[in-house]
Amino acid sequence: MDEPALRQLLDDVRQGALAPDDAVARLRRLPFADLGFARVDHHRALRQRTGEAVYGPGKTPEQCAGIVAELLVEPGGPVVLTRATVEQVASALDAAPGGVVTATGEHSLVAWRPAAERPGRVLLITAGTADLPVAAECQAVLEAYGFRPVLVADCGVAGVHRLLATVDDLVEADAVVVVAGMEGALASLVAGITPAPVVAVPTSAGYGAGLNGITALLAMHASCAAGITVVGIDNGFGAACALARMLL
Amino acid sequence: MDEPALRQLLDDVRQGALAPDDAVARLRRLPFADLGFARVDHHRALRQRTGEAVYGPGKTPEQCAGIVAELLVEPGGPVVLTRATVEQVASALDAAPGGVVTATGEHSLVAWRPAAERPGRVLLITAGTADLPVAAECQAVLEAYGFRPVLVADCGVAGVHRLLATVDDLVEADAVVVVAGMEGALASLVAGITPAPVVAVPTSAGYGAGLNGITALLAMHASCAAGITVVGIDNGFGAACALARMLL
Amino acid sequence: MDEPALRQLLDDVRQGALAPDDAVARLRRLPFADLGFARVDHHRALRQRTGEAVYGPGKTPEQCAGIVAELLVEPGGPVVLTRATVEQVASALDAAPGGVVTATGEHSLVAWRPAAERPGRVLLITAGTADLPVAAECQAVLEAYGFRPVLVADCGVAGVHRLLATVDDLVEADAVVVVAGMEGALASLVAGITPAPVVAVPTSAGYGAGLNGITALLAMHASCAAGITVVGIDNGFGAACALARMLL
Amino acid sequence: MDEPALRQLLDDVRQGALAPDDAVARLRRLPFADLGFARVDHHRALRQRTGEAVYGPGKTPEQCAGIVAELLVEPGGPVVLTRATVEQVASALDAAPGGVVTATGEHSLVAWRPAAERPGRVLLITAGTADLPVAAECQAVLEAYGFRPVLVADCGVAGVHRLLATVDDLVEADAVVVVAGMEGALASLVAGITPAPVVAVPTSAGYGAGLNGITALLAMHASCAAGITVVGIDNGFGAACALARMLL
Amino acid sequence: MDEPALRQLLDDVRQGALAPDDAVARLRRLPFADLGFARVDHHRALRQRTGEAVYGPGKTPEQCAGIVAELLVEPGGPVVLTRATVEQVASALDAAPGGVVTATGEHSLVAWRPAAERPGRVLLITAGTADLPVAAECQAVLEAYGFRPVLVADCGVAGVHRLLATVDDLVEADAVVVVAGMEGALASLVAGITPAPVVAVPTSAGYGAGLNGITALLAMHASCAAGITVVGIDNGFGAACALARMLL
Amino acid sequence: MDEPALRQLLDDVRQGALAPDDAVARLRRLPFADLGFARVDHHRALRQRTGEAVYGPGKTPEQCAGIVAELLVEPGGPVVLTRATVEQVASALDAAPGGVVTATGEHSLVAWRPAAERPGRVLLITAGTADLPVAAECQAVLEAYGFRPVLVADCGVAGVHRLLATVDDLVEADAVVVVAGMEGALASLVAGITPAPVVAVPTSAGYGAGLNGITALLAMHASCAAGITVVGIDNGFGAACALARMLL
Amino acid sequence: MDEPALRQLLDDVRQGALAPDDAVARLRRLPFADLGFARVDHHRALRQRTGEAVYGPGKTPEQCAGIVAELLVEPGGPVVLTRATVEQVASALDAAPGGVVTATGEHSLVAWRPAAERPGRVLLITAGTADLPVAAECQAVLEAYGFRPVLVADCGVAGVHRLLATVDDLVEADAVVVVAGMEGALASLVAGITPAPVVAVPTSAGYGAGLNGITALLAMHASCAAGITVVGIDNGFGAACALARMLL
Amino acid sequence: MDEPALRQLLDDVRQGALAPDDAVARLRRLPFADLGFARVDHHRALRQRTGEAVYGPGKTPEQCAGIVAELLVEPGGPVVLTRATVEQVASALDAAPGGVVTATGEHSLVAWRPAAERPGRVLLITAGTADLPVAAECQAVLEAYGFRPVLVADCGVAGVHRLLATVDDLVEADAVVVVAGMEGALASLVAGITPAPVVAVPTSAGYGAGLNGITALLAMHASCAAGITVVGIDNGFGAACALARMLL
Repeated sequence: MDEPALRQLLDDVRQGALAPDDAVARLRRLPFADLGFARVDHHRALRQRTGEAVYGPGKTPEQCAGIVAELLVEPGGPVVLTRATVEQVASALDAAPGGVVTATGEHSLVAWRPAAERPGRVLLITAGTADLPVAAECQAVLEAYGFRPVLVADCGVAGVHRLLATVDDLVEADAVVVVAGMEGALASLVAGITPAPVVAVPTSAGYGAGLNGITALLAMHASCAAGITVVGIDNGFGAACALARMLL
Repeated sequence: MDEPALRQLLDDVRQGALAPDDAVARLRRLPFADLGFARVDHHRALRQRTGEAVYGPGKTPEQCAGIVAELLVEPGGPVVLTRATVEQVASALDAAPGGVVTATGEHSLVAWRPAAERPGRVLLITAGTADLPVAAECQAVLEAYGFRPVLVADCGVAGVHRLLATVDDLVEADAVVVVAGMEGALASLVAGITPAPVVAVPTSAGYGAGLNGITALLAMHASCAAGITVVGIDNGFGAACALARMLL
Repeated sequence: MDEPALRQLLDDVRQGALAPDDAVARLRRLPFADLGFARVDHHRALRQRTGEAVYGPGKTPEQCAGIVAELLVEPGGPVVLTRATVEQVASALDAAPGGVVTATGEHSLVAWRPAAERPGRVLLITAGTADLPVAAECQAVLEAYGFRPVLVADCGVAGVHRLLATVDDLVEADAVVVVAGMEGALASLVAGITPAPVVAVPTSAGYGAGLNGITALLAMHASCAAGITVVGIDNGFGAACALARMLL
Repeated sequence: MDEPALRQLLDDVRQGALAPDDAVARLRRLPFADLGFARVDHHRALRQRTGEAVYGPGKTPEQCAGIVAELLVEPGGPVVLTRATVEQVASALDAAPGGVVTATGEHSLVAWRPAAERPGRVLLITAGTADLPVAAECQAVLEAYGFRPVLVADCGVAGVHRLLATVDDLVEADAVVVVAGMEGALASLVAGITPAPVVAVPTSAGYGAGLNGITALLAMHASCAAGITVVGIDNGFGAACALARMLL
Repeated sequence: MDEPALRQLLDDVRQGALAPDDAVARLRRLPFADLGFARVDHHRALRQRTGEAVYGPGKTPEQCAGIVAELLVEPGGPVVLTRATVEQVASALDAAPGGVVTATGEHSLVAWRPAAERPGRVLLITAGTADLPVAAECQAVLEAYGFRPVLVADCGVAGVHRLLATVDDLVEADAVVVVAGMEGALASLVAGITPAPVVAVPTSAGYGAGLNGITALLAMHASCAAGITVVGIDNGFGAACALARMLL
Repeated sequence: MDEPALRQLLDDVRQGALAPDDAVARLRRLPFADLGFARVDHHRALRQRTGEAVYGPGKTPEQCAGIVAELLVEPGGPVVLTRATVEQVASALDAAPGGVVTATGEHSLVAWRPAAERPGRVLLITAGTADLPVAAECQAVLEAYGFRPVLVADCGVAGVHRLLATVDDLVEADAVVVVAGMEGALASLVAGITPAPVVAVPTSAGYGAGLNGITALLAMHASCAAGITVVGIDNGFGAACALARMLL
Repeated sequence: MDEPALRQLLDDVRQGALAPDDAVARLRRLPFADLGFARVDHHRALRQRTGEAVYGPGKTPEQCAGIVAELLVEPGGPVVLTRATVEQVASALDAAPGGVVTATGEHSLVAWRPAAERPGRVLLITAGTADLPVAAECQAVLEAYGFRPVLVADCGVAGVHRLLATVDDLVEADAVVVVAGMEGALASLVAGITPAPVVAVPTSAGYGAGLNGITALLAMHASCAAGITVVGIDNGFGAACALARMLL
Repeated sequence: MDEPALRQLLDDVRQGALAPDDAVARLRRLPFADLGFARVDHHRALRQRTGEAVYGPGKTPEQCAGIVAELLVEPGGPVVLTRATVEQVASALDAAPGGVVTATGEHSLVAWRPAAERPGRVLLITAGTADLPVAAECQAVLEAYGFRPVLVADCGVAGVHRLLATVDDLVEADAVVVVAGMEGALASLVAGITPAPVVAVPTSAGYGAGLNGITALLAMHASCAAGITVVGIDNGFGAACALARMLL
């Protein structure tokens, strides 16, 4: 219910076309569909310009399928199912055929109704090969939203010339996502080179003192390079959404 | 042994109906049954008005069955077995038929001798679909104690209008349980709307920086909304007991 | 703006007494006063039945005084200033004379417009003498809200007979606040005795392994006694508000 | 040394205007000034379009003054000194008069050579009054960079209508900074309303379970709202730089 | 109220010498003195054979003095005041002259009514000179309880021959207290040499990765030497009490 | 090599019965057997009066068997294999028949050559049924060392009368082991009742805020009851060794 | 591209043998091979004198095989694959026959092209048998680099004479690696005896308070022995590389 | 007592020049001086080739002075007093004139009897100006041991060209110390460039998510660059000692 709709409603009341009690009821009615186990938010795409996402963990395959199907009922933007198990993917594709599946490590991501291609030079850099599943999640979501990110894998700082080979792309990018586990130092280095927004994704790659990504998360927040922003551990989806907020 | 019983005992001693040595022995006898592996507390229902609960993890199926059966020997209130495995459920139902089983995620809850329906408008709100198993545990225990909670699922703050649609119920509730993982922000929002007691249950839903529920627990404790109280992570049973203390 | 007011507004629109544009403007107007540095919430007392509170830390004395004065502009319930420094107390009392000051350890609490006495047997138990400042904060807020809590100090479990001497009061209480630092065991013990709601306040009293109250907070959440709820470390104010939610 | 300069250098070598040894030496010469205690980076403004910043803590007043003066030697963009003590401010202003001082809690920020006003609707929202010093740091840096942020203070979720009053501004913003301590829930709520980039700044405001800002930091990372990015605790400067990356 | 007293009470009831109501009242009366801010436990010395202790932090000087004086009213064993400030010491000595003061780092310990000398070879070993204040607390309490511990300072494992020089004493000791900060390795080494009980006291001596004693505490618990027991960080008092439990 | 042996060696040198070089060699020879993967310590039983223990985790079944067999080569006291898998138990029993197997939760303990019965009233108390596997480990080791501990299960503080029924045993015990997970409060309560040494074993029983035993460990260290000592999480073996140090 | 090559390039430009544009292109070309999923660093062996390593976790078997094969394309030093699964080992050996496989606990290490034997007395000491898999990783890498370390297993400080038997070797070593879990005390002891560099490897051996190696890591950093350096938890590979840096 | 001395002693016994009892006594006598509060280790310089160090914190000025004076009694290598307060410095210089004082942030370091200059190209690199006090401690100790380290300050990775300007020195160094706070990324970068040993010193410079140096420590341990070793937080002294072990 946006402001024009509200004015219309009040005009209707004024002109007697709508009883006050009915107006009160409608004012209280909000744009979501209550499935019992979920309140599907048909308003989000309007509010946030991107699309709808369903987070798999903790939901039954049937719940995933139901929410995806409900979201596709109304016309709109892309719909993605993230961190889905094999069973959730199967159930969702059964209810909503046509989704594109991307492997993201142990899980999969499914995207329906991808957006048309949009401009914007997006660079997606990983510190190591082990960070690729998180980058894949980010890439798939960015592509569903219409972006065509360039993936540059394995630029860890232990061989800094590998990153320097990408300096031109870094300098010209509209936005950069840095995906790095272990000590997460790549984010600081990249942010010192590019003037573009840098979204850092700490990953759980590494072991021992990496603390499943907490070390990288803390290190990215303690970075000596100004203006890095950080999303949650392994949250490739979140980084893609952050870029959508910036570039849309 | 409550105060009237004590007075009676002393009267008996005074009138010679009871020898002092016997009185000493009885004063030391306490209302529990020692099964060797457990001291079953027949006094708890009296002390706490609710009922008896057996916590499954760490107990063998036989121990679960034995404790449940012992609790049902004496007449009394509801008995629940929480966090039970398939084997524990089977063993307990074998020893004590008639229990009602509720799925609570990986485990189950079994309830015997449910209480009659009691008044009290109880609202049970979850932030996401993934929080439903914890809510189910809470709901099953509340129902065993005679309450009829209304479940409102998936009201996470990222779509605040979904919560606002429940404002009337929130304002009129006698007590509210908020079940939320991830950042746990729903508790603050709810407590800012309702004047009723708000019991917040942090859940382990979410990943990475959610730290298996610790983030939500800390956030609920650091809440800017006054008067929230918090129970342990995933502790739907505890929230139900807290409400029973308030409403009974 | 509650529902009757909304109906009235719509009636006014319907009858031409109010132009739609003015109605839109009024619908958007909310009951707070914007002081620039604070949005004073004149609606809270209505929503939450208790009163208004100003949290001192991080505010200048002038800001404290300004917010308190604004809250007292409209008639209503009690207003409290918590965790106030000497300078904040002086400034607030200067702007709003008549507040009652209570020492709460390093800080003070000031209360204006206390509520009339209300029924309700509230027990406030501390594990040690060092927990008294937190209990004092809780007591002062409860008294501002009209309750007359009974304070029982120094009942730590190392001398369990000291608590057992209070058993009758525990059993008959309408609500109990347990204030305990160190290992926080008192909460478990009390909750095993009383059927009333138990709100546990972990305190930072103790040293070393007490981790400034985190140990007590975790222990209270891990309690083997069912139905304890917990508020934040040293948060006597929060415990008082939780009781107000239960008893009002 | 950018690509045109490199070509020129090579042309000079080819034409005999520059000896190879001299070229090697120049290729190795980089655009910083070594003060002994600091390597002042005259290249950063070119690389990052914003300006230069000197972080006060751990530097002597003389070191602060020396670095600021060195940065102002060459023409360029704004220069800021952050987290400066009274002594550092005095020393820096002595060496480089004309800086504008902003109080940021215990410290101050000084800005020289502010940029001309730039377009861009930036909203700066705080959860509480105690978050204002961090917001002030962010605002001062944004202003030095040419932005004119709108500050909306004290919109904590415990009185959600205070935030809702700002919905129109949120929806139309080009970027939003959310400054929140305690449980940090405001970031989730804001991100659910606005489609703009949301940079969340956890603050150390609050006590006990707030863990000096760690709880808010974790909560913001665990947020159920997609696309939030987070900077370090109390890092208003970092948030301003992140916005500069997005908006310049 | 021990068992003979209970029998006597019941005999008195039986013979009419005591009315049942009076007996109920006496059964409820417990051996502590309620000072309002403290419930002084006159029963502890009987229960625990050692003496009474008052923990200073969080108490006013007047409270310290009041509790000490109350404890000295009845004849009995030693009374100690631990972690006392200069003001608390002065106030307590004023109320109860004759206490012996020991410096324990930032605080002091005062002991009244020391016990007569008892047998028992107690060895008190510190890893470094910086652990001496904690050892001093332990030593003073042990001496108040009648023991004459031998103090061996500065035996850290970096110069293992310093410890080996004490091997004979270790082998013949009745109990050993190891006071060590930093990595706390001395406890493992000592426990590998002596067959006696080893009580390890982690101290907050050290910096950085020592985490104020947490590292030593964890290391002592993870020790590869069997049968070490550990008390809290800097808790020399607790170690002394543990030895008293073993040796009395 | 004890002191008499050293004197004998020097006498042999003096009388020419031993060449100095041979003496140097023997002085350097120490009483262990080097199996390559382990240095089996034949000296420990002498040093520590108890017996030898082999910790299973991280060793192959063959290594376990080899070390046990080596330890049994020389006459001496009990030998125990702790935390052993099914394969380790089989392999060890194959190499060293006659060991007595005790189930200790997921693992087993095997004991060879148990000591003859020794005096000493040892009480072994658990807070809940889920703590029994840890208690079983402790009990089996104590029995191997000749003690006959009395096990009292399920005395959690939520039903304090269950513990009070054991008061007489507590008061008369020579040593008490308290095995408790969750909040670990039982240790404080027991230590307030008995004058005997109290060794507290935190267990990983419980979930969420119990942090796999860390909460109980911290709580036991922060205990308000004086003189508790603590061993590592789930370390029933360590508690038994600590008692052996005290009672042998 | 080292300095002589750079001079040559500039000479070529000067003499017209190379066009400036081509020189710019070559200056930007760096010595790695981009496989898409990895940027294989052919320059590392030159920079670091040791060899190349591929870290298994997070890579597919095909990726492991591809990187190893690429590294072996050019002549050079040893190549190792660490932390490899059975599938990764098989795939890598298929693509690059001749690698030597070493079991390192749950994983394996494969080494190709081992270096010729080098001088240097390297001592590799473990605290327990359970630390052997980490030591095996370290040993295999050291041997690939040409060293012949002496392994001394099971020297935990609980039987300090086992370490003292190795004193002569410690004093004469060129470098010592200490591999220890639990409380990690062995590192302090060794560093107090040897003047050689001591690299400490904390391991995750142990349980409970060992916190999967964090306790040992912290304890090694808090060591009272000067000049210990530490590598990551279970990082036998890193310790070997650290020694290669020192000894090559 | 080294091996020749032991042979001499045994010869003396054999020849009757020494009675066995006297030999036993001497064998037990070890080369330290017991001052009561410290066991001064006159043997360390022999064992470790470097010198003696006294750690100031936790010692009284008199204790510092006494230990320094005792160490200087016998001829030998350098003696340093670390982390000393103004009072400790004054007291030590009074007892042992001629020490050279270096400011190391809040504390000072004093060195007596510096060693003659030794060869060895040592590079000491800091990430920022705020890391200089820790570097100063390291430099002063290295100089006392005879090294002449080259200090390169302020090479943080946010301006990577500042480090690249030092590449030649890095490649030719015999050992490198990296002193870095915040996210500590500089260590990874340096280790990727130089083949020399890299000792990383995490510092507490930075704020918020830097966690007083814990983030840098963890990040350095989780580094993607092989063969970095790490010392404790702010432990410049330890890094100097580690280099002495490598280079002496």
